[in-house]
Amino acid sequence: MSQNSDLEMAINTLVTQFHSASADKAATLKTDEFKGLLSSQMPNLVKGGADQGFSAILREMGVGDGEGISFKHFWILIQSVATKQFSLLKGQTSSSCGCILQ
Amino acid sequence: MSQNSDLEMAINTLVTQFHSASADKAATLKTDEFKGLLSSQMPNLVKGGADQGFSAILREMGVGDGEGISFKHFWILIQSVATKQFSLLKGQTSSSCGCILQ
Repeated sequence: MSQNSDLEMAINTLVTQFHSASADKAATLKTDEFKGLLSSQMPNLVKGGADQGFSAILREMGVGDGEGISFKHFWILIQSVATKQFSLLKGQTSSSCGCILQ
Repeated sequence: MSQNSDLEMAINTLVTQFHSASADKAATLKTDEFKGLLSSQMPNLVKGGADQGFSAILREMGVGDGEGISFKHFWILIQSVATKQFSLLKGQTSSSCGCILQ
């Protein structure tokens, strides 16, 4: 691969961000490591309210109490955010608001 | 959102790349539109062999004959590529090869 496309780089970013959040480069993140990742990379998700918001996110990702956060867990969150974002985009462009994308 | 993080921008790229591949901004892509998206953005996936490789990709994504490609279908592909990439990264760093990431 000599030069990566935008899409390839985006996938790469998702993978490396998760991977580099682990201090010991383990397969799963500790709760604090994952909290740090979300705070720095997805501040809008957690800004709601301290630990309550964070616990709700972990539950949505299917992470059990005290369990490490796997890439699979992380992906559930990414998928949820991406799907919401795509729905918004669809909504915008199918409306009759004279959207610049049409 | 005043400034987006790398992770947020990566998600945004995935969403907008799919969305902008549709000429009429429909919710699903036509086969040719999706083919164009893969050829330009994921050339390594399709370079294998013309249409045969492309059909196999569509099948893996659960796309039926003549069916439009939804964001959900597209996401199955992204997930598969990301998961493979993460496995490679894990493999590299857990080995005893003196990896620079450790």
